[in-house]
Amino acid sequence: MPEALAKGLRNVYLDTTESSFIDGQEGVLLYRGYSIHDLAAHSSFEEVAYLLLYGSLPRREELRAFDARLRAQRALPAGVIEVIRIVRKSHPMDVLRTATSALSAHDPDTADGSRAALLRKSERLTAQLPSIVAAHQRLRRGLDPVAPRDDLRHAASFLYMLRGETPSDEAVAAMDLDFILHAEHGANASSFAARVTASTLSDLHSAIVSAIGTLKGPLHGGAAESVMKMALEIGEPERASEYVRARQRDRESRIMGFGHRVYRVEDPRARHMREKSRALSQSLGQARWYQILEAVEKEMARYQRHGIYVNVDFFAGSVYYLLDIPEDLFVPIFAIGRVPGWCLQVLEQLQDNILIRPLLRYEGPMDLQYVPLEER
Amino acid sequence: MPEALAKGLRNVYLDTTESSFIDGQEGVLLYRGYSIHDLAAHSSFEEVAYLLLYGSLPRREELRAFDARLRAQRALPAGVIEVIRIVRKSHPMDVLRTATSALSAHDPDTADGSRAALLRKSERLTAQLPSIVAAHQRLRRGLDPVAPRDDLRHAASFLYMLRGETPSDEAVAAMDLDFILHAEHGANASSFAARVTASTLSDLHSAIVSAIGTLKGPLHGGAAESVMKMALEIGEPERASEYVRARQRDRESRIMGFGHRVYRVEDPRARHMREKSRALSQSLGQARWYQILEAVEKEMARYQRHGIYVNVDFFAGSVYYLLDIPEDLFVPIFAIGRVPGWCLQVLEQLQDNILIRPLLRYEGPMDLQYVPLEER
Repeated sequence: MPEALAKGLRNVYLDTTESSFIDGQEGVLLYRGYSIHDLAAHSSFEEVAYLLLYGSLPRREELRAFDARLRAQRALPAGVIEVIRIVRKSHPMDVLRTATSALSAHDPDTADGSRAALLRKSERLTAQLPSIVAAHQRLRRGLDPVAPRDDLRHAASFLYMLRGETPSDEAVAAMDLDFILHAEHGANASSFAARVTASTLSDLHSAIVSAIGTLKGPLHGGAAESVMKMALEIGEPERASEYVRARQRDRESRIMGFGHRVYRVEDPRARHMREKSRALSQSLGQARWYQILEAVEKEMARYQRHGIYVNVDFFAGSVYYLLDIPEDLFVPIFAIGRVPGWCLQVLEQLQDNILIRPLLRYEGPMDLQYVPLEER
Repeated sequence: MPEALAKGLRNVYLDTTESSFIDGQEGVLLYRGYSIHDLAAHSSFEEVAYLLLYGSLPRREELRAFDARLRAQRALPAGVIEVIRIVRKSHPMDVLRTATSALSAHDPDTADGSRAALLRKSERLTAQLPSIVAAHQRLRRGLDPVAPRDDLRHAASFLYMLRGETPSDEAVAAMDLDFILHAEHGANASSFAARVTASTLSDLHSAIVSAIGTLKGPLHGGAAESVMKMALEIGEPERASEYVRARQRDRESRIMGFGHRVYRVEDPRARHMREKSRALSQSLGQARWYQILEAVEKEMARYQRHGIYVNVDFFAGSVYYLLDIPEDLFVPIFAIGRVPGWCLQVLEQLQDNILIRPLLRYEGPMDLQYVPLEER
């Protein structure tokens, strides 16, 4: 009897974790035991990053010191800025992958796999990735990169570097929330890729580079971009239901931002992005985008025989759009938020490591006879 | 009852394959149905790369055209050489990862996921990776890169670019054999990382970059380097048995180059590297290294209660050493050989793709109460 296949590793439990609890049936997400709803309402990305990396909510002095280290390490080495300049015409995820890979050449801890060094590198990568995305956005527009400001918090510094001007409190709060909601999500494909890379005892930069390349794919990080493209295509809230109906008739086409490998009910992160999209739409006088997405969601509810609900990316795209962020930066922004989660997954993998290597069941021809080239 | 864990995915069958058949109990390896022994004895790396990518042994005209495309695409874009120059002080695997990532900025097919484009990119990466490794070796020594020569076959061109002089036939044959033996090996960790990345419908360069970062780890690609370090440390054949005995007494230390996740008998690739190491040692008048390794293998046989035999990397290091290749290029050379296998695994993954995403069993605290910062 042939071995059973575990395609996609669906329902395969790789290991135990203390990172996040995900209940796909009930729509529950905890980071390190804390509800995503509490963290979304009361926390900051810096605090969540600390919680993920160190395992507990920081006390005031711990948070101050952690934040100070992040602020001090935002600047990119000149060589990495030069690498970004060379590849600046690529997709921003390709640039992020290449520049993060190049960062390893400048990191004093690249070859040090100790837990202390892994944590130092995790903090450095958390601090540096926003600078890559922002520097690239400037360079491809023919502008010089904007140096980070250490008087701004993480989300504010990113928006400042991106635009060259101090962002509004509302924009910072939206960006911060987005980073919190994307910070960690178990053995998702990008985090799992980081684990596979780390399992050979390769280094942290290699693992994060694998994660970035994996997040790039439309089945993982790309949904927010697709949803916003759809909203722009629909154009007016009144046209949403007809658009959805047409797509539902054509079984080949798909409405993006719905469904999730793990959640069978609504993604618990979605409500926070929905609320942020609604609030930003109103305060910026651009209610249309939220209304379009709301109408799509309502129309889709009529077809949800299989319980397909919106995921975190459904409303995220409209938030980025309202923050005046180009569509091809949506996935890089996901990456910026996910760095602490990726690093945590690597830290966990290395705690009791074993090489991750599945098997394949061979179904090709057997024992073919080698015929010399002259006789073929 | 908690879900069973599949740590390391040991014994988990991810999917079916037509790439290679591996029988770890009997020590059998077939590429696309052809015995590794026949391919090692009669074939060339170019032919094996064609076989892996296209599924059958090429006829004369097919091989000629394929080889011509490889030869025509060896040169690196100036931007990629500049990236190598910037990161030249890094470990060669970090340089290979960064430069391969940068290649995507210059590839006309980066964003094209069609099968035809994937094959074009597979050929291009097969042709380009040796040029990266060679250019880096020159640049870090303060020399200019040597342009590829299109009148030389794959292995010869690599050695020529590395050293700036036409290699001997014996050296070319050894390098070619090494590339053949490393070209493909199922769902090993680096190929699996490439599959995980590809499973989100990310691009081929991202997948190969994940594979390179994963191969870097000492549990995967690093054994050849460690074995040669050991041989140098032992220094004389007469000292080998005492060295092994001392290591066996110290249960913490390990003799590298023995054992394999899949093979329970001798790795079928090992015999070819053993033979090549012996022949090169003799013809170069440096019999010592082969004699040391032979003595280590003999001594180890006395401890093999668990059936641990040499793997492909045990003799590979001595072959590279005899070819005057620096130790930190051993893993990059493994990568050069493995490119067709990585690309084949991605092609197979994309044939009937499903996102690769396992689960983790949460064992941390539940429902912790969020305490505001001021009250901690």
